[in-house]
Amino acid sequence: MLARPATEERRMADAIRALAMDAVEAAKSGHPGMPMGMADAATVLWSKFLKYDAADPRWPDRDRFVLSAGHGSMLLYSLLHLSGHAGMGIEELRRFRQLHSPAAGHPEFGEHPAIETTTGPLGQGIATAVGMALAERMLASRFGKSLVDHRTWVIASDGDLQEGISHEAASLAGHLKLEKLTVLWDDNNISIDGDTSLSFSEDVLKRFQAYGWAVRRVDGHDHQELAGAMSQALRSRKPTLIACRTIIGFAAPKKAGTAASHGAPLGGDEIAAAKSALGWNAEPFTVPEGLKGRWEEAGRRSAGTRRSWLKRLAKHPQRAEFERATAGKLPENWSEALVALRAEWAEAKPKLATRVASQKALEGLVPAVPEMVGGSADLTGSNNTNVKGIPVVRPGDYGGRFVHWGVREHGMAAAMNGMALHGGLIPYSGTFLVFADYLRPALRLAALMHQRVIHVLTHDSIGLGEDGPTHQPVETLASLRAIPNTFVFRPADAMETAECWEMALRRADGPSVLALTRQGLPALRAEAGENRCARGGYVLAEAEGGERQVTLIATGSEVSVAVAAREALAEAGIRAAVVSLPCWELFATQDVGYRASVLGAAPRIGIEAALPFGWDRWLGERSAFVGMQGFGASAPAEALFEHFGITPAAVVAAARKLVEGDR
Amino acid sequence: MLARPATEERRMADAIRALAMDAVEAAKSGHPGMPMGMADAATVLWSKFLKYDAADPRWPDRDRFVLSAGHGSMLLYSLLHLSGHAGMGIEELRRFRQLHSPAAGHPEFGEHPAIETTTGPLGQGIATAVGMALAERMLASRFGKSLVDHRTWVIASDGDLQEGISHEAASLAGHLKLEKLTVLWDDNNISIDGDTSLSFSEDVLKRFQAYGWAVRRVDGHDHQELAGAMSQALRSRKPTLIACRTIIGFAAPKKAGTAASHGAPLGGDEIAAAKSALGWNAEPFTVPEGLKGRWEEAGRRSAGTRRSWLKRLAKHPQRAEFERATAGKLPENWSEALVALRAEWAEAKPKLATRVASQKALEGLVPAVPEMVGGSADLTGSNNTNVKGIPVVRPGDYGGRFVHWGVREHGMAAAMNGMALHGGLIPYSGTFLVFADYLRPALRLAALMHQRVIHVLTHDSIGLGEDGPTHQPVETLASLRAIPNTFVFRPADAMETAECWEMALRRADGPSVLALTRQGLPALRAEAGENRCARGGYVLAEAEGGERQVTLIATGSEVSVAVAAREALAEAGIRAAVVSLPCWELFATQDVGYRASVLGAAPRIGIEAALPFGWDRWLGERSAFVGMQGFGASAPAEALFEHFGITPAAVVAAARKLVEGDR
Repeated sequence: MLARPATEERRMADAIRALAMDAVEAAKSGHPGMPMGMADAATVLWSKFLKYDAADPRWPDRDRFVLSAGHGSMLLYSLLHLSGHAGMGIEELRRFRQLHSPAAGHPEFGEHPAIETTTGPLGQGIATAVGMALAERMLASRFGKSLVDHRTWVIASDGDLQEGISHEAASLAGHLKLEKLTVLWDDNNISIDGDTSLSFSEDVLKRFQAYGWAVRRVDGHDHQELAGAMSQALRSRKPTLIACRTIIGFAAPKKAGTAASHGAPLGGDEIAAAKSALGWNAEPFTVPEGLKGRWEEAGRRSAGTRRSWLKRLAKHPQRAEFERATAGKLPENWSEALVALRAEWAEAKPKLATRVASQKALEGLVPAVPEMVGGSADLTGSNNTNVKGIPVVRPGDYGGRFVHWGVREHGMAAAMNGMALHGGLIPYSGTFLVFADYLRPALRLAALMHQRVIHVLTHDSIGLGEDGPTHQPVETLASLRAIPNTFVFRPADAMETAECWEMALRRADGPSVLALTRQGLPALRAEAGENRCARGGYVLAEAEGGERQVTLIATGSEVSVAVAAREALAEAGIRAAVVSLPCWELFATQDVGYRASVLGAAPRIGIEAALPFGWDRWLGERSAFVGMQGFGASAPAEALFEHFGITPAAVVAAARKLVEGDR
Repeated sequence: MLARPATEERRMADAIRALAMDAVEAAKSGHPGMPMGMADAATVLWSKFLKYDAADPRWPDRDRFVLSAGHGSMLLYSLLHLSGHAGMGIEELRRFRQLHSPAAGHPEFGEHPAIETTTGPLGQGIATAVGMALAERMLASRFGKSLVDHRTWVIASDGDLQEGISHEAASLAGHLKLEKLTVLWDDNNISIDGDTSLSFSEDVLKRFQAYGWAVRRVDGHDHQELAGAMSQALRSRKPTLIACRTIIGFAAPKKAGTAASHGAPLGGDEIAAAKSALGWNAEPFTVPEGLKGRWEEAGRRSAGTRRSWLKRLAKHPQRAEFERATAGKLPENWSEALVALRAEWAEAKPKLATRVASQKALEGLVPAVPEMVGGSADLTGSNNTNVKGIPVVRPGDYGGRFVHWGVREHGMAAAMNGMALHGGLIPYSGTFLVFADYLRPALRLAALMHQRVIHVLTHDSIGLGEDGPTHQPVETLASLRAIPNTFVFRPADAMETAECWEMALRRADGPSVLALTRQGLPALRAEAGENRCARGGYVLAEAEGGERQVTLIATGSEVSVAVAAREALAEAGIRAAVVSLPCWELFATQDVGYRASVLGAAPRIGIEAALPFGWDRWLGERSAFVGMQGFGASAPAEALFEHFGITPAAVVAAARKLVEGDR
């Protein structure tokens, strides 16, 4: 495999190989095989095609590079180091996979400014890149080519393409004709278990053609072939898949071409032999100066382009708007429409499903916040996420602000991450709450990456009725509340829905979920001053006529159950307060005194049309829970609330038992 | 569209259409469009091809029919009713979508014996069917064609094929050459949002060809073309996709061919007009007797075949084994190897990672329990799910007992559901715990359907080390514990691992998850009599020298942290007990007295290398938690436990605070 003479370009690639071997060896863990196999393709890309300037890795018009095969992180760290990025010096590479090193086991967004996204869970990178490529097209449509004209490049592995999310993402990219997206597939025939033929025999190129992609196959170690295919990709009117036939662990005499080079250090002898085969004589963690210089030159390739861009930006009529949106700052007065809506609702007290209230909130927000981009996974009319008059994103026409994602929840959520990471857009979207399970791996990454994406998840309980247990979330709220840095909002009426939307949009450092009802809910609030959801929980109705004897704590549609129970209890001479707890995460950040004042010292009853899992946190020892105990059933909603005993009468009975047990 | 004369077969299909319209109308909700569109294809299948006997819907050698597009449930209920299945009379159809009706909104496994699987969440049906088709091939390989020789038929929608799981499942089916699997795709160009061209323009046939499938396209209303394509499928050496070009809501004059017929009642006028167009004069919920007779004849088509099969079974040398396995009964003495292993471990007290202990348990179990089928989503060596000498399932050779699923967690889990539903096999498989998120929708269905599938989920905490936060579960245990009817086992050492394996296998009515460590753990138990994990939690070490002052409650790798802390506390004069809580779900079912005796009255400390979400249930008000507070990090495991403060010293500090606060 080393018959060809070591050209300077091959030497540049060998520098990646050497660093990858050295760093994995030093860390005593990691994945050398992929960086060694894809070093040539990456070198061609980063030295000839990728538009970037190591001096400013956050330059908005840079090309995006996504290492979907995140386990090959040393490929990325080597590239960053060699091309002269600050913050990825040789010391960082030496500390690969050690605590506080930016060179983490997998690329972690936030650890270094040139890491565009966190990857590792397979398939996420390619799907995130689809969102980045779509964001570029949408922003180019708004701000013009003089400000927005970049490409998205992905390196993906066999594993990425086996994952279902790759299907959703690639099918969508083909449909939307995202021609500036190019995927370099590391076609090395090896996965962890061994030869990919153990489990994989599909014709990947034909599959991508079926999606509407341009496809090419090249020798992934032949720089000319690689450059030729990348040049063709620049001219393509479709997204392009380049199958790079490579040898995993290229140059390692015993382990190349085998799974043994995938996920473990090669060992000293094998490294020595590999370096010898490459003619690489430098000390470990050392790159000959000439070669380093050549790489740093590559890292400055687009410096002039960037300077020209800065000049164009300086005199661009939309400069302020561009800078505001890309900085993630909301427009001034963005919340005015919400304020007006809340005032109107305080007066009118409309009975609305919270999904409908959400739509009305969006009718105010979307025109005021141009970076908001909506969508739905083929449930637009049910999620109420579109707004009349807002155009749809179509193949070749990216001026719209609503995406029909198709029945592709997972691809949707990952692409939304990509849009948020790209910058300049705030994606929100919709599906049924129960289908949060389908998009969960992408939501987890949004939380880990601190990205502002908003999922509007409707049909949030047995209240959806006849569709039955497959569609009725009972554990979903708990499973979402369990994810760190994710805000789960479950508003109780129209007013709270507007307040929760305000909090979700205001939040710039993590994802939010809005769990909304299918069924109509009575208005519970008559004042519109303070955003009461801002503290996550509050006393909606204090006990009357004396100290609380019981506190009813509820969320969403069950707050009105609590309110009705409170009235019935009052008639029975029992003093109950009602606490609405629309966002546990916000409530948990309040000071102890506030929380204690809200939750009170009386026995507590939790009420939620969901399982009790997680509720103990708010209930304490003298408590009860009115909710679900298992999966739901298919029947009209009212029949189900009756059947499962989530009614004011059930709350009253539980309260009497607690209070009278005290006597 | 109604130009062709109404043949008897068309009339049979019209009976489905009429019942679907009537039932959705009576329920005031549901999905009439799909049953009306696919009535012809279903009629051809159920009257000419499907091997079934309405008199015995659980006959083991029946063909499996999976309505992947579960929203079209009235198609299935109409077929069951018309073909003469008991338990799906006209009264059941009249009660479509009402409480306690077997005719639920979506087909629910268990509601009627002829419902092969629960469907509704899109993509699950087709992937489950792949597991059924694989199970058939594997059992045919064991018991021979005379006992096992049936096909798997699927009706799938556009939405099914958009979901990522369809990619994983179809790619695998093509790879494994599951030639007896046929998918009828309801190619109607309509999804909920409108025309599928809003989001979908892939060439589905080409895509499936790329997977190694045979493909056909037919007019889905032409019975001859349909029968021709199904005949060809019988002879195919590959799985077959038949694209049935149909009109959704066929015959409804205004709504046919539009999304308006998809998910709502058509309304009285439209129904009257549709029936008139069809020449259908019968009263609602009525089928003319002759036509019903013709359908019931279809329902008896394979009665003779079934009788012959029963005769073959009666004299088959493997009859007892076949009946045992299909009944889901474990072999006698299945647990002997585990008993021996536990006795050995009580003596030797080996330090093992629980994933390695699991492998050793499997080395005993797999030879003893022939229906166990293992696998891994391309992490075989990491999950330790294979056993030496056990052959692998290969394309065309199904005698193996281990499946290389590829990087396809979701397809794997759904196919495992299909294997369990098929009967005769107990699937277990592996991936990393954090990737439970990728397979979660299928696990939820296993729980809902009460299926015995076992997921071996290794690398269960920050203890996996350098791979970092993308690979480190922190919320995953909580999110799995939240799923109803799912047992989450987290054993503390080798002994507990064997005990948990025993409980997981013994459990016939739901899925189990085994959360196992990458890192080695000390042995904590020296007796091997009783299976102490059977009660979900127990006192591993009581306080010595007096009453407990604090109870340390831990799971998995943190039990040894608790044990070390207990010793350190004893030195400091504080009496601590250690409770191991390997399975919350089992513990929760114990009587109050037992639970109280285990948890004790002293202050409690929960210890788990995960988030506290859900732990309040066991901790009470005077308590502390030692564990994670957010996502993990990339570093060696020991450094991470230190960094995040999950150490004996941290437990000691927390205990002192609680106990000394008491004084």
